[in-house]
Amino acid sequence: MERRLLEKLKKGEVSFHEIDDTLEAAAAIELRRAVVSEHAGIDLGHINNFSIDVEKVTKRNIENMIGAVQMPLGVAGPLRVNGEYAIGEFYIPLATTEGALVASAHRGCTLITACGGANVRIFDDKMTRAPVFRVKGVIGAQKLVEWVKSNFHRLKEKAEETTRFGKLLSIEPFVAGRSVFLRFAYDTKDAMGMNMVTIATDAAVDIILSENDVELVALSGNMCTDKKPAAINVISGRGKTVSADVNISRDMIEEKLHTTPEKMAEVNYRKNLVGSARAGSLGFNAHAANIAVAMFIACGQDAAHVVEASSAITTMESEEEGLYCSVTLPSLAAGTVGGGTHIGTQQECLAMLGVAGAGDPPGANSKKLAEIIAAAVLSGEISLIGALAGRHLAKAHAALGR
Amino acid sequence: MERRLLEKLKKGEVSFHEIDDTLEAAAAIELRRAVVSEHAGIDLGHINNFSIDVEKVTKRNIENMIGAVQMPLGVAGPLRVNGEYAIGEFYIPLATTEGALVASAHRGCTLITACGGANVRIFDDKMTRAPVFRVKGVIGAQKLVEWVKSNFHRLKEKAEETTRFGKLLSIEPFVAGRSVFLRFAYDTKDAMGMNMVTIATDAAVDIILSENDVELVALSGNMCTDKKPAAINVISGRGKTVSADVNISRDMIEEKLHTTPEKMAEVNYRKNLVGSARAGSLGFNAHAANIAVAMFIACGQDAAHVVEASSAITTMESEEEGLYCSVTLPSLAAGTVGGGTHIGTQQECLAMLGVAGAGDPPGANSKKLAEIIAAAVLSGEISLIGALAGRHLAKAHAALGR
Amino acid sequence: MERRLLEKLKKGEVSFHEIDDTLEAAAAIELRRAVVSEHAGIDLGHINNFSIDVEKVTKRNIENMIGAVQMPLGVAGPLRVNGEYAIGEFYIPLATTEGALVASAHRGCTLITACGGANVRIFDDKMTRAPVFRVKGVIGAQKLVEWVKSNFHRLKEKAEETTRFGKLLSIEPFVAGRSVFLRFAYDTKDAMGMNMVTIATDAAVDIILSENDVELVALSGNMCTDKKPAAINVISGRGKTVSADVNISRDMIEEKLHTTPEKMAEVNYRKNLVGSARAGSLGFNAHAANIAVAMFIACGQDAAHVVEASSAITTMESEEEGLYCSVTLPSLAAGTVGGGTHIGTQQECLAMLGVAGAGDPPGANSKKLAEIIAAAVLSGEISLIGALAGRHLAKAHAALGR
Amino acid sequence: MERRLLEKLKKGEVSFHEIDDTLEAAAAIELRRAVVSEHAGIDLGHINNFSIDVEKVTKRNIENMIGAVQMPLGVAGPLRVNGEYAIGEFYIPLATTEGALVASAHRGCTLITACGGANVRIFDDKMTRAPVFRVKGVIGAQKLVEWVKSNFHRLKEKAEETTRFGKLLSIEPFVAGRSVFLRFAYDTKDAMGMNMVTIATDAAVDIILSENDVELVALSGNMCTDKKPAAINVISGRGKTVSADVNISRDMIEEKLHTTPEKMAEVNYRKNLVGSARAGSLGFNAHAANIAVAMFIACGQDAAHVVEASSAITTMESEEEGLYCSVTLPSLAAGTVGGGTHIGTQQECLAMLGVAGAGDPPGANSKKLAEIIAAAVLSGEISLIGALAGRHLAKAHAALGR
Repeated sequence: MERRLLEKLKKGEVSFHEIDDTLEAAAAIELRRAVVSEHAGIDLGHINNFSIDVEKVTKRNIENMIGAVQMPLGVAGPLRVNGEYAIGEFYIPLATTEGALVASAHRGCTLITACGGANVRIFDDKMTRAPVFRVKGVIGAQKLVEWVKSNFHRLKEKAEETTRFGKLLSIEPFVAGRSVFLRFAYDTKDAMGMNMVTIATDAAVDIILSENDVELVALSGNMCTDKKPAAINVISGRGKTVSADVNISRDMIEEKLHTTPEKMAEVNYRKNLVGSARAGSLGFNAHAANIAVAMFIACGQDAAHVVEASSAITTMESEEEGLYCSVTLPSLAAGTVGGGTHIGTQQECLAMLGVAGAGDPPGANSKKLAEIIAAAVLSGEISLIGALAGRHLAKAHAALGR
Repeated sequence: MERRLLEKLKKGEVSFHEIDDTLEAAAAIELRRAVVSEHAGIDLGHINNFSIDVEKVTKRNIENMIGAVQMPLGVAGPLRVNGEYAIGEFYIPLATTEGALVASAHRGCTLITACGGANVRIFDDKMTRAPVFRVKGVIGAQKLVEWVKSNFHRLKEKAEETTRFGKLLSIEPFVAGRSVFLRFAYDTKDAMGMNMVTIATDAAVDIILSENDVELVALSGNMCTDKKPAAINVISGRGKTVSADVNISRDMIEEKLHTTPEKMAEVNYRKNLVGSARAGSLGFNAHAANIAVAMFIACGQDAAHVVEASSAITTMESEEEGLYCSVTLPSLAAGTVGGGTHIGTQQECLAMLGVAGAGDPPGANSKKLAEIIAAAVLSGEISLIGALAGRHLAKAHAALGR
Repeated sequence: MERRLLEKLKKGEVSFHEIDDTLEAAAAIELRRAVVSEHAGIDLGHINNFSIDVEKVTKRNIENMIGAVQMPLGVAGPLRVNGEYAIGEFYIPLATTEGALVASAHRGCTLITACGGANVRIFDDKMTRAPVFRVKGVIGAQKLVEWVKSNFHRLKEKAEETTRFGKLLSIEPFVAGRSVFLRFAYDTKDAMGMNMVTIATDAAVDIILSENDVELVALSGNMCTDKKPAAINVISGRGKTVSADVNISRDMIEEKLHTTPEKMAEVNYRKNLVGSARAGSLGFNAHAANIAVAMFIACGQDAAHVVEASSAITTMESEEEGLYCSVTLPSLAAGTVGGGTHIGTQQECLAMLGVAGAGDPPGANSKKLAEIIAAAVLSGEISLIGALAGRHLAKAHAALGR
Repeated sequence: MERRLLEKLKKGEVSFHEIDDTLEAAAAIELRRAVVSEHAGIDLGHINNFSIDVEKVTKRNIENMIGAVQMPLGVAGPLRVNGEYAIGEFYIPLATTEGALVASAHRGCTLITACGGANVRIFDDKMTRAPVFRVKGVIGAQKLVEWVKSNFHRLKEKAEETTRFGKLLSIEPFVAGRSVFLRFAYDTKDAMGMNMVTIATDAAVDIILSENDVELVALSGNMCTDKKPAAINVISGRGKTVSADVNISRDMIEEKLHTTPEKMAEVNYRKNLVGSARAGSLGFNAHAANIAVAMFIACGQDAAHVVEASSAITTMESEEEGLYCSVTLPSLAAGTVGGGTHIGTQQECLAMLGVAGAGDPPGANSKKLAEIIAAAVLSGEISLIGALAGRHLAKAHAALGR
């Protein structure tokens, strides 16, 4: 019988997701994998190797599942973090296939920890969703903007009915002719919150539509802005706005990085500031994305959010005693519940950091995770800038990264 | 004995990577995992579950390995692609934990395939590395720029000595006071090429330094620009510059997406163009990053390169017969050799697409992969814009994505 | 005696501005002009021709004055404006040397007026100044941010002591490592307000410095952002955030522009949206800067503020009846008192628009001026997009603009 | 009779430009001014005061002329410039109404000249025009791109037939779905060149249209990019790409600016680099636009081109001996023939700099002008950064700029 179903799947008479209705998750996975395997004429023996709870993930995380991809996991650290939520030493889980990355982060962690740890502070915390409406014209735009201002509390009430934890913080309007964008910002506690804010905003939109002569064009109008590089996130924030810093002593830089504070400050200046400026970049850092995405993958975060994380600003300033180093991530999405956080390996990585599941009070765990990520990004910046200053980057890649 | 080593590791008397010198890879992995496990007081049973060739990956892809992360893998498609390298129907491997993503891509693939497939063309193909030099001033800058122009062939020869496949295509100079950036662009064939161009450029830099009165500040000066959103990549390209398009018939849109070409064109217009413009964004698309990163993870690509992929431009234009849809990725990094491409599960995903390993001629496979990714991104755009136009996004997320 | 002074000036023994202490303004002007004239060996007969009140302008507007530049002044219109402050028909003064510009604007005005006028609304109105401080680190940054929040009313009181009209609306903090930027936003009524906010912020800074362990690095930290293209102004606004729109009938477009609504909408789409996106632009318009700067020069505004005005978004959408056209200027600086507004010719241009001097209530005149500028920019957009759609741009330039 | 015409003009029965056919320029000017004067109920006595050759300017520079605006003209300097074209000391003409601007530039000039002058070099020189075409899809896009590459010399020949001086240097293609942008770049010698390149490109477009199955959407597709802030100009250049620098001695900084090299370097770092980065800016300078626009107005340049000039990068680096200061303007439009350069006062300003009219060889004068502007912008940067470092900006504005 499965063979007949397989043939139907191959011919497209039955769709990949239709078999979920009749088969157990594991059987459906196997059958789809067989179709793909035969289509391409290849064996898929590795993909079959996983310990994921398929009943759960096929409901929440994946459709048309055929198996799992394995990403090598390394650790850097311990990394001392002096945050408001993350206080202590942490082993940083990094899932990557890029040789030299973990080694680089590790070296940075060692330096930071030896110098007393990274101070980290969160300056803003919210998740946004910005529907776009078509109105009658600029006069209609003004009416809608004023109506929203007057009815904020009703919209808040309606939006919050859809969620146990989410709180609507503000609605910021933006007008472009007869397009009106309303940027809803929520405190989503320990959830990264994209789904939460989508559903909550959808509910609020219903009131707007019923009481105003406007049309909804799209529930997301790109002023959110999700997974696209955007100045609005750099400036107004999305997810956590977080800064981390540390003073690395001159001795440590000379001993461990074989360079000087002055040289590192110059690399940061000419590369991360002048170079990025000249390139029309929104990211003024060395490789924040590398550390961020490796932690995101390890910790069940939405990997595409590295787009926002990549708009970080790194500063390095030399002084008599050593080097002041900082990194600021204006838009760091982080959550410890929802998404991929519950999957076996991912949950273990979160547990390594002491942030698996909801925090107490709610929100404490996602903030702790964000603080650790920021500190880890800082470690990566220090290490790479050090390697560039000492001109041993190419050598490291030649040795570790082929 | 291992217990003693473990204690030393815990106390920091021995470093994580030092044990690689004395232990087998598997034993070192186990020992490190034990340290982390004890440090956090947690069990790491899932991370231990993998079929990765640890001897190989610990040499090339990861340091301080403790195990592997499992990412659920689904497939969308088949997706018909009418490229110059990718011609045929492909099942698209997507590694993600974001519910609804595979289903959304799958729906888009179905539409594209039913309408004859996505046309794809590559307009540029190169990998870049831009060292930054300190010169004496603007007069020195002019001298260096002219020297490089006059000595291009010598630099090319030196750079290409370091690589079997890479070819230096051009060196573009940029000046900012006494900082001079030289953007080296290479054809890296089937490799994504970041390591190749780093090493090759390092060699060329040696000649520059020996014959000019300038100092190298950093081998990468951020005008490359790697893993940061940057207009230079949008405009001048990095990786593959690729466009995909398709005409979706009115019938299909009405039947499968329950909306109209006009509504979808309006969503694309107000969201992807006007909304992104208003947000100061470099990405004029709906969610290119989602598809790109899921394919990157599946196929052993460097996941952080989704930053560049996210700067895509999507257009949708309604017509009598239906909807013209396109996506352009000015900066899509893709490789089928090197990086994580050789790891078991990743190689299987590449094999599903018929692009495992080097192409014939060299470069054909990475181009084929890029064409498929572009077509897959197009499928995601069509599906999400359709969902927004029909206002069923929030419902989909409520159903699939909690 | 003047000859001796002239020789001393030529030799640099006396500085250009020193003679202001001993000579009447007119005599000093003449003497400096003589120096320049002799230095270059040229006659300066035209520069000498002006009716400016030199006693006044040499105190407020210019130093080292040697004469005046004459800029040809044309008018477009009448332009009907349906604003909240500007209601009626206006002749638009445009000071320019670019042939075809006034003709183009005039044609646009004619169309708008014939179609009932441009609707205009102001969505935000404020002038900003953002000093940058150096703090001890991210922990110090958090302290400063919180202190400012707690002491807003004291800072407001102090800032407002320095100005009769200005009101401090908000202080928005931005952090990057140990750099903290505080963006002060003021309602400056009829003044453009740059000087007012500089002086007021300087006063507030004194309190900050006296009660916090921080150092002022610069009274302007570029997050204001003044006279540089910046997403912060596009998103958060600076000066007036204003939108204008109009529906142009199909008949008018065919008769006067010899094209169709569909063609114009396509030009706007591919040029102003897709083209600007592809170029990494912050300006999504055709030539807002042309109209804005010609009005700025005519009306005694600070011409450099055209930088901010150029970040406008133009939309054009075709419909059965014709074409919906809008322009949104997120950051339009405008004032009717201060700066060059009191000078003879400039004041006459303001008077032409009924906005010379302070408004009643204060702020009404600068808002009225902003509304008129926005409507005039719209006229320019319609005219140029029409010319491009009909492909008669090159011809117009060949005829009028050599 | 004139009264009857005036009434017709007031009623709109005769249009403003129609009277040019029957009246002398001066009479038409007077008549239009009378209409505007009566419409607004005001006297226009100042606007009437000018020495412009109205026969000439009404043919080339202005339509619907009613008079002239007078802009106060001051001089800064002498400024020593060590360029390749500009060599010597120059008085810098600045037309502005912003108090303190000339004084500030003057102080900067004094410092630069005392320290040996500003070194200036031009790295690129071209004017661009980028038409946008609609093609059949991405396959059609590829065809067009390849056709253009193969037919460059024919297009060049056709384009250059329309101009005595202009030379087509390159055509760079950009694709976004079925929109294809072709960026034509020309050497326009002493002309700023916008009209020249518009007309030349229009001619080349004719061949493209006659031999390819494509449609011209607009002769300018915004990838030029003209008068909008755009990364493409920062990166690829438009107009002159020019850098200026100088080493200011420690003594001079202390004596004249009452601050230190270290403080100025820090202001530049936190304001022009970190601040601009944090603001999502394309301009990394203090006030390049102020100097540029004042020189543009004085010298008959297109004032709206200050938009491009504002995207300058300023660097300041402290050293034992003093402060290294540079400014780079990637996109500085400058011309000494055409536009407003022939008008009396403007020509006198150009003559002050020795650049009135065409250079020998052609192009030498516009390059000389660009070098002087860059050096003048540098003087403004040094002066303002010095004022901020010494915290006397607000005081200067209080004293000079009310």
